[in-house]
Order: sequence, then structure tokens, then C-alpha cells
Amino acid sequence: MLVDGKNYQSIWLDESDPRVVRVIDQQKLPFYFEIKELRSVEDVYQAILDMTVRGAPLIGAAGAFGIYLSVLEMNQATNPRSHLENAARYLISCRPTAINLSWAVNYVMEKLSSVKDPELLSKSALDAALNICEKEKTNCRDIGKNGFKLIEAISKKRNREPINILTHCNAGWLACIDYGTAMAPVYLAHDAGIPVHVWVDETRPRNQGARLTAWELGQAGVSHTLIADNTGGHLMQHGMVDLVIVGCDRATAKGDVANKIGTYLKALAAFDNNIPFYSAFPTTSFDLEIKDGILEIPVEERDPEEVLTISGLSGCEIMTVGLCPENSTAVNYGFDVTPAKYITGLITEKGICKATEEDIKNLFSDK
Amino acid sequence: MLVDGKNYQSIWLDESDPRVVRVIDQQKLPFYFEIKELRSVEDVYQAILDMTVRGAPLIGAAGAFGIYLSVLEMNQATNPRSHLENAARYLISCRPTAINLSWAVNYVMEKLSSVKDPELLSKSALDAALNICEKEKTNCRDIGKNGFKLIEAISKKRNREPINILTHCNAGWLACIDYGTAMAPVYLAHDAGIPVHVWVDETRPRNQGARLTAWELGQAGVSHTLIADNTGGHLMQHGMVDLVIVGCDRATAKGDVANKIGTYLKALAAFDNNIPFYSAFPTTSFDLEIKDGILEIPVEERDPEEVLTISGLSGCEIMTVGLCPENSTAVNYGFDVTPAKYITGLITEKGICKATEEDIKNLFSDK
Repeated sequence: MLVDGKNYQSIWLDESDPRVVRVIDQQKLPFYFEIKELRSVEDVYQAILDMTVRGAPLIGAAGAFGIYLSVLEMNQATNPRSHLENAARYLISCRPTAINLSWAVNYVMEKLSSVKDPELLSKSALDAALNICEKEKTNCRDIGKNGFKLIEAISKKRNREPINILTHCNAGWLACIDYGTAMAPVYLAHDAGIPVHVWVDETRPRNQGARLTAWELGQAGVSHTLIADNTGGHLMQHGMVDLVIVGCDRATAKGDVANKIGTYLKALAAFDNNIPFYSAFPTTSFDLEIKDGILEIPVEERDPEEVLTISGLSGCEIMTVGLCPENSTAVNYGFDVTPAKYITGLITEKGICKATEEDIKNLFSDK
Repeated sequence: MLVDGKNYQSIWLDESDPRVVRVIDQQKLPFYFEIKELRSVEDVYQAILDMTVRGAPLIGAAGAFGIYLSVLEMNQATNPRSHLENAARYLISCRPTAINLSWAVNYVMEKLSSVKDPELLSKSALDAALNICEKEKTNCRDIGKNGFKLIEAISKKRNREPINILTHCNAGWLACIDYGTAMAPVYLAHDAGIPVHVWVDETRPRNQGARLTAWELGQAGVSHTLIADNTGGHLMQHGMVDLVIVGCDRATAKGDVANKIGTYLKALAAFDNNIPFYSAFPTTSFDLEIKDGILEIPVEERDPEEVLTISGLSGCEIMTVGLCPENSTAVNYGFDVTPAKYITGLITEKGICKATEEDIKNLFSDK
């Protein structure tokens, strides 16, 4: 996607130095647009942990590059298998909820397991990581095309009135490699001249909506309005939302969807007001081993400081301010699970399906 | 209630100068405990507008004192009727959603309408304002006693395990004159030795939960944990909430409840997880003229800056930081309406009733 007229992905290999992976520093957005260099598995781990990179598809890609960088760190004294297995475990341990991280790391590890010549390990790891990036880009483009039909169908019933789409957190191109998941249909509709307007949940505590989605949409020229996370229900009660599209960190075989904390509340409100609620994600976000999302998906508990404080811009400086009494404590769950019964459909690169075990099975058998 | 061991109300008449109304400056809490003086109807208007005072019962009381101060502003050239009617209209226009403001202002105006001697106007206005304060304190105490029974009943089924109560916004003593509405039962349970723990929604955009409820509970020694507004649904899905109690800004004859934006989302989640959801308020918050809260209750739209920015403590200074891209815009609805069907019951000073037209009618006929 374009940033000030120049094309960017959220992660890429440095053109002049193939030992360096570059990422957009998402901790600095929207206040500063900065590129960060990752040169080691430790750099990748830290970038995922502190959310320099975040978003299910992107942390998958970052993890894959992490294995590549860990290959580069080997020397003649290294036992490749144990070195790489340690790196894989380390990377996967970083964030538990999104399945994409372990999927991508395991994908690269699987490719490496058949490489006999140690000289070829780095090329194989890099090929695998780049392959994941390309595949996720194609996935996002196809998610966009499939989701576009939903927006187009609503638009046909309208007389050039803007379609109001509510989203939670950031499931745009910054969360992916390019295009985005939940936002890909919006970008395609905008490009096709369909008037769209996005309600952007600020998404406390990390404010990915206020900081990233608002920035992305602004860069793309898509009309949007920031709202407190508390506001969506009121908008839906008053006919101000036509469609909800969110991303996904892990979906079960029965169609339960783990996504950023607060998604479940919006799904309930959409259901109560007969508003279609979709989750958009590549099929790499499915965890078909599990069925009951509430019982089985591990929900990351993050640092309470993210709730007790907030960062924002004061003058030219990003500052952190305290929000509550000194002695108060907080808990900080990163995700919640929306039960399948509240989800109108799942938008994947393979097509749109209902959030039911049967439809999800069909999605894979159609392949 | 006690602040550092000293007893306070949220509003009171200065003991040494009866031309001065004093309030706790709720814009400074929890970072600074400061008292502000209100000396004119304009001071009262500004204090309600900038939320130095807020909360349905408290803005009612402040409005009543506003009429008293406007009486003091009269001189011999003043036409009392038009002067006071202008003051009443001005004060009522300040915030549209909570019915208590217009109720209290009209109550004082009604008392003044029968006063023939202009010399007696100020005493009558003051008596009426103080009467409202005393009445609301009694109401809150009785709301506490009635709500206490709900907590006690849950506690009897437990083996000294803490009862987990979730609340949204601030409906504690700061929102009232003393004791609180939603928090009054919690304080009574705590005083009675029943172990209670409160999940405090931070309540963006103004963060009344993080700033005021957390502070109040801390001062009273009640165990509490701050959460992002997005978190309640997840907690409810995982059995971590026993009871939800919120306040109310206006309730209809059919039991719909307008309260701080985001309340509706918590009611949906409570309903989905079979968790009792109560709204606690004095019967002065009923607007029996209207039935359908979503269609008929005016919802205040506030300054978008409250969403685009946030205030917090940096060092010893309260600072405001920007949260989103420079060019993004926001909307800021202050309240939403929870339909009666999602409300387990209404806790009032007259008793607890179901959120139905019949039960609400009985509540008043029992009087």
C-alpha cells in the first residue's frame, strides 16, 4: 500500500543487505513513520513482543524471518537441529493467541527439515519466509475480492449513500504483509468508487484502531471516524452501521473466532440489531484441531501497564501518561472469543462461508 | 464518605460564607484532591459543562444550587421571574440526557413560584437545594440497603469467596451527594464484611471508571481491578463476574435505561452469559413521560476532542496527549440506552423491581 505515494509492505528483506529484515515500526505510528531493522532472532522476538510488528499474518511472517535470521546466526560449532528448534520454541512462545505465529515458524522448520546440506539452510529458510509473505499477500487480495462482493451488494440497494462499516482493532495492511484482511474489501470498494465510511474503534488498551487503522485509512483516502470502544452499540441501535468486519487471530473448526479483546461485545450488538458481522482472515488462521474457542484458545494476558497508562503525542514527543490512582491494579487480556452463533460469515481467500463446522469443512475440501 | 479519614460530600454550602457552594473538582481526581468554589449561575453552568461535577444526582443538586446562586445575583432592578426562568433554562440546557438536572432545577423553581416576598427567595431556594441533597443522600442509603440484599444472597452461596461485581463509569458517591447509587450496595457489603471485588471499566472517553470509581473504591478500601472497556465480555464468558451494577441517567416508564455510553454492550454480554444486570438509581431518574428509551431519550453529543485526546498524569502534571493521526475526526456520544429486556432489575430507594411497565407503576403506587 502507498505511504505518502511510495509503496510499502509491513515487512521486507533489505534489498542491499540480505542479512537484514526491515519492518515499519508500528509502535511509532501514527506519530512517526519509521523503519526498524531486525538482524537476529532476538530482534524478531523483541519486535513481536513489544508490538513493533503485530497482527496475526504479520507476526507469522516475522516469525518465519526469525528462523531465517537464526540460521544466519549459526557457526561451525552450532548443532543446527537444536539451535533451530530452540529458536522456533522461543519465537512461538512470544505470543500465544494467534495461530499464525506457530504455523509460520513450523512451516519454515518443516522446509528446513528436508535440507541435508547446511550451506543451503539459509536459502531455504529465506525462500520459505518470502513464500509465506507472497502467499499472505495473495490471500489478502483474494479476501478483498470476496469481501468486496458483500459491500457491492449493499451498495446496489443504496443511492450513492456511503456504506458504514465498523471495525475493531487493526486488520488492515499493517497487520498483514499488504492489503489487509478486514480492510481489504474496504480498500477495493473505495478503489471501485463505492462510497464507504469506516467507524474505527479506538481499541484500548493498545489503541490499534486510533493509531493504525485511522492512519491506514487516512493514507488511502478512505473516509473514517474514530470512536471510543463503548460507542458501537449505540451506532448500531440507530441504524448507523451497515456491516461489521473484523480480523481474526485464531478460528476453530466450529467457527468460533478469537480476535482483539472487545470484538465479542461488537458481535453481540450486531446480532441484537440484525447487522451482518463478518470476520475476515486467511485460512492459515484456522486451528482445525480445536472446536470450542472459549474453552480451548489460549488468551494472552499482557502487562497491566498497558491499561494503567496510555501513550500519545504531546508536542513532538510520544509520552506515556498515568490514567488512574497510583495504587490501582489492572488486568489486561489481549483477546476474546466470539462464538460462531454471532458470526454471519467468515471471509477467507477461498471464499465466504458460514461459521459452521460443515461449511468450514467444505471450504477446505473445495480446495 | 471518607477521604483520607475526613468526611466529604461531593457538593456542599460553605459553612462560613453562604454565598459560596463548594464541590470536589472531579476533573483533577485521582491525581489531585481539590475543592472548587461556585459563586454564580455561570460558575455552576461551567462546572456541569466541563464535568467538574458530573453524575445524574449530582448535576441535579448542582443545578438546584445554581438557581439559589442566581437568586443571590438579583438586584432591585431585576425582574425575578424572567431572571430565574432564564437561569433555569440556561442550566437545564447544559446537559440533555440525565433527567435529574431538569427535575431538580424545576423542583426549586416550583418552590420559588409560591414565594411572594422577594426577601424570602434566597432562603427558599437554598432550602430547596439542601432538601434535594438530603433527599438524594437518603435515597442513596436506601438504594444501598436494597442492593445489599442481592450481594448478601450471592454471598450466602459462597464460602467466603469474593463476589465479583462489574461496574461501568462512576455511579459512586462522587456521582451523587454521598454513598452512591450502583456502588452504595458494594460499600454496605464491604462494611458488613462480605468480601467484594469490583471490576472497574475505565469508561472511555472521559475515563470516569479509571479516574473516579477506582479512586473512590481505593479510598474506601474496596478491592478492585481496572479493565479496558473491551474486557467485560471476556470476563463474563469465563465466570469471573457474578453481578453487574451500573447507574442511570434516565429511565423510561417501560424500564429502558440511559447510562454512560458502553453500558448497553455490557448488558448484552451479561444477558448472553446469564449474569444478573442491575441499574441502580433514585426514582428521580425516572422519566415516566416516555416509554421507548432508544427513540425518545436525547443522547448528548460531546466534543470530539475527548476521543481524539486523553488526559493523564506525567510526573506531577496533568497532561493531554493526542491519540490518533492529525487529520482524523471523531464522534463522541455520551450515553447509550439499554433496552429493558436486558435488565434483570432496577434498584431504587423504594425497592428493587423488574424493568417492566407494570412493576415500575407498582413502585410508585406503593408509595
